[in-house]
Amino acid sequence: MTTGSPTKISTKAIAQEFLDSFDTFLFDCDGVLWLGSHLLPSIKETLGLLNQLGKQLVFVTNNSTKSRAAYTKKFASFGIDVKEDQIFTSGYASAVYVRDFLKLEPGKDKVWVFGESGISEELALMGFESLGGVDPRLDEAFDHKTSPFLVNGLDPNVRCVVAGLDTKINYHRLAVSLQYLQQEDKVHFVGTNVDSTFPQKGFIFPGAGSCIASLACSSGRTPIYCGKPNINMLNTIVSAKNLDKSRCCMVGDRLNTDIRFGVEGKLGGTLLVLTGIETEERALENTADHPNPKFYADKLGDVYELTH
Amino acid sequence: MTTGSPTKISTKAIAQEFLDSFDTFLFDCDGVLWLGSHLLPSIKETLGLLNQLGKQLVFVTNNSTKSRAAYTKKFASFGIDVKEDQIFTSGYASAVYVRDFLKLEPGKDKVWVFGESGISEELALMGFESLGGVDPRLDEAFDHKTSPFLVNGLDPNVRCVVAGLDTKINYHRLAVSLQYLQQEDKVHFVGTNVDSTFPQKGFIFPGAGSCIASLACSSGRTPIYCGKPNINMLNTIVSAKNLDKSRCCMVGDRLNTDIRFGVEGKLGGTLLVLTGIETEERALENTADHPNPKFYADKLGDVYELTH
Repeated sequence: MTTGSPTKISTKAIAQEFLDSFDTFLFDCDGVLWLGSHLLPSIKETLGLLNQLGKQLVFVTNNSTKSRAAYTKKFASFGIDVKEDQIFTSGYASAVYVRDFLKLEPGKDKVWVFGESGISEELALMGFESLGGVDPRLDEAFDHKTSPFLVNGLDPNVRCVVAGLDTKINYHRLAVSLQYLQQEDKVHFVGTNVDSTFPQKGFIFPGAGSCIASLACSSGRTPIYCGKPNINMLNTIVSAKNLDKSRCCMVGDRLNTDIRFGVEGKLGGTLLVLTGIETEERALENTADHPNPKFYADKLGDVYELTH
Repeated sequence: MTTGSPTKISTKAIAQEFLDSFDTFLFDCDGVLWLGSHLLPSIKETLGLLNQLGKQLVFVTNNSTKSRAAYTKKFASFGIDVKEDQIFTSGYASAVYVRDFLKLEPGKDKVWVFGESGISEELALMGFESLGGVDPRLDEAFDHKTSPFLVNGLDPNVRCVVAGLDTKINYHRLAVSLQYLQQEDKVHFVGTNVDSTFPQKGFIFPGAGSCIASLACSSGRTPIYCGKPNINMLNTIVSAKNLDKSRCCMVGDRLNTDIRFGVEGKLGGTLLVLTGIETEERALENTADHPNPKFYADKLGDVYELTH
């Protein structure tokens, strides 16, 4: 992969060149704008500057646990005004995939959800009835003789399993999901995102990919993934926003999801920020393991701080 | 794999030849002797005949949820007298592996268990303290700020994670197990068995392999598996019983675990019974996907019925 040597945003001139190169900025959120509930320095100012310059801002997250509506509230809690149609979660991308690529019919076809409310809420907005997910009856210990999801047989209208991060993962959810996945000719298998872990407060916790891995193993099936770096996510955004990819920059904190997403999606550029899980050494190293970003910066806020 | 054409045990002469060929019989249990709580036909009579002929009987199960002691009670409930030292579970094989191959020290080194009581009970009999497993504090919703397994740091004496089927699988168990697995240089990773599913009452449910798959994905590590068809299980049995492998026959209902176990372990013979998940067609087909058995039978009880 010949991506050239990454340029560090470390002077006013480079920051200005960076700003001039793109019309649309696609941001990963956690690790870029904030860490958990802590907003990173000069983020409000940077986003304000971009708005002032007439740039289009899009927020792209692999977090499927929250819906886009819930994400606008998270932005608002930091005093940042972002509209729902600027936000793309892997749960939303999965719902778009179900509707536009699998062509399932709202009102008729149903979806079995293994995951949190961010998936079923997006499906509901498109008119899809979903089963499973956060249904509290799935919190009960599993017994095939009494499970309300098995005693009367499987729902014949379920045509897809959408699976994502599920902090309520249990045997009941895994066992019923597997029954649907065994209908291989009839029921599609969609995964929100492939991330095996995510960082939080100094820990590394199991991510969507490792929840989905259990279902993939038991069913012997490989899901279609919709989140970054899969091109399904980018197709959803480009088509919704009618974007000129050459004038887009992907901003993220992970080389193998965010930066890969931008590089493989043939966007005009990529910016790696070092406020998440990557280091300057990794950004610069030449390896087949990950792509290199076009730009990198200690933090996103440097774009504002260097130009003011 | 040139294993010759399987011989069906369908006449008295063949049954007699089968009996004469071996001194020791290794039996898988579920699908061979019983289905769940239902004893299969002529099993008591067949085991009685083998005992009468002076054959040695060993019972080998990938079920890690019960200890060997608990298994003797299951046999007793069918009126079959079996001693604990005739039983080898994948949980016991894992505990033997921890002691004899990893050479961990009882009383000093500890084991983090992801799985049911059949693992920790076997470890305890060898003097190993285990953590995790069925500890009810792991049934609580996970919060890294309050989890009693994280607030005071990880236990520095844990040197191994043993993972198996866990019908109490939840995010708390997955998250804490991952913290130990991240200590890659210090903490070994042992899986009881690789089976991705198991059949029960007409359903196929998630097995140990699909629970372990989630931990393997999040940690980026591959466990050492101890159950069938892994040679670790056979080594444990051969050494404990001082067996002549050429005079041993493995009896099972799964080509890719039981029969593979016998063939790759270079036992004198194998018998596939069709009371579990395999068919006559599969037993006879010539494919690289699975080995063929030396003998097969509609049911194990035919060995008795044909000779009486």
